Amino acid sequence: MHYQLIDQRENRTWAVVLDTSDEANACLLAFAKAQRLSAAHFTAIGAFERAVLGYFDWSTKDYKRNAVDEQVEVVSLIGDVALDGEEPRLHMHAVLGQSDGRALGGHLLEGHVRPTLEVIVTQSPVRLRRRSDPVSGLALIHLDKELP
Amino acid sequence: MHYQLIDQRENRTWAVVLDTSDEANACLLAFAKAQRLSAAHFTAIGAFERAVLGYFDWSTKDYKRNAVDEQVEVVSLIGDVALDGEEPRLHMHAVLGQSDGRALGGHLLEGHVRPTLEVIVTQSPVRLRRRSDPVSGLALIHLDKELP
Amino acid sequence: MHYQLIDQRENRTWAVVLDTSDEANACLLAFAKAQRLSAAHFTAIGAFERAVLGYFDWSTKDYKRNAVDEQVEVVSLIGDVALDGEEPRLHMHAVLGQSDGRALGGHLLEGHVRPTLEVIVTQSPVRLRRRSDPVSGLALIHLDKELP
Repeated sequence: MHYQLIDQRENRTWAVVLDTSDEANACLLAFAKAQRLSAAHFTAIGAFERAVLGYFDWSTKDYKRNAVDEQVEVVSLIGDVALDGEEPRLHMHAVLGQSDGRALGGHLLEGHVRPTLEVIVTQSPVRLRRRSDPVSGLALIHLDKELP
Repeated sequence: MHYQLIDQRENRTWAVVLDTSDEANACLLAFAKAQRLSAAHFTAIGAFERAVLGYFDWSTKDYKRNAVDEQVEVVSLIGDVALDGEEPRLHMHAVLGQSDGRALGGHLLEGHVRPTLEVIVTQSPVRLRRRSDPVSGLALIHLDKELP
Repeated sequence: MHYQLIDQRENRTWAVVLDTSDEANACLLAFAKAQRLSAAHFTAIGAFERAVLGYFDWSTKDYKRNAVDEQVEVVSLIGDVALDGEEPRLHMHAVLGQSDGRALGGHLLEGHVRPTLEVIVTQSPVRLRRRSDPVSGLALIHLDKELP
């Protein structure tokens, strides 16, 4: 994984490029920790050698794992970073393009890069926090201000 | 719907989090009106309990409605805000991931959130305007500067 | 193609709107050259009359072309601009929604707009560079800083 700061004001924007055999969750979490990100969002394009997409099954309150065991285009990757306790935590969803052009999508559980994943990460100068949601069991971003 | 300003300079960036049973169009339009947005763009991820995707049929010049009556991952939501007259108007397109990982996509006519939709909204300090296009009948963003 | 600067600080954000019969690669490359972009990223939504999606086949090290010969919603377009030598070069991936709501995705080789493509382009004040990757034969973004 390589990176470069491409904009610096109060918020900062980074280009982060993952290489063949990098795994997207592990790398981007390592980047978030190294940069001490407490609030960020990102988009990416590239390709995976293989991936695992999650689907949150409301009846079991757990993620179903859909394995994608083939080279796919990463046609969209959108994600965010917020704190869970004091540690940054990633949440990202991917759309993958297969050989015949069909698209798959889900919560990105694993994404093994080949040959590149080009990520634009924008940090914000605040702290966003996740909090456990009693209904789903998921850690959801909690904000104070409410619009009825 | 909860929200927090996560960056403030000339443009402003907001985290907006929708909750179970919030409808995406209604909530984000209410947010745009409350913040008096005259130009903004956003991305989001999360999940819907059900949704309706539109496909603009060129022969009828109307939206075909594809109902998605199942829990789906919102794997991508990209949209913008511009003025239609003096009121903000949303335009957003979504990609949804089904239980088996297959992806659906279209113009988001309805999106009923469950359990969360995490939206990053960036406001720009200008006024973008929509104008009725005589050929399609759609209200398209109109800009003055032209590159031939 | 019409455009408007919607934010100006050190980085600049543009709204770029393509019109019926504009081709996305040609137009956005012309815009990147006209504005002398050396590092930028963008997202877009809209619709195409027809398109060609690429899938990089790892066995042949070449793009397979999947023609999409029908009106489709552009449900996601994510891309970036970096220099290849001294010239800006685009890289963009699209997700397209068909009449029945099914999604297609791939590297956007051709995208013929009808009636609009609304693009938000953010320029960064640096130079990102592509360099030929000997394994894939592709020109990948090369950054100096590395996180092990």
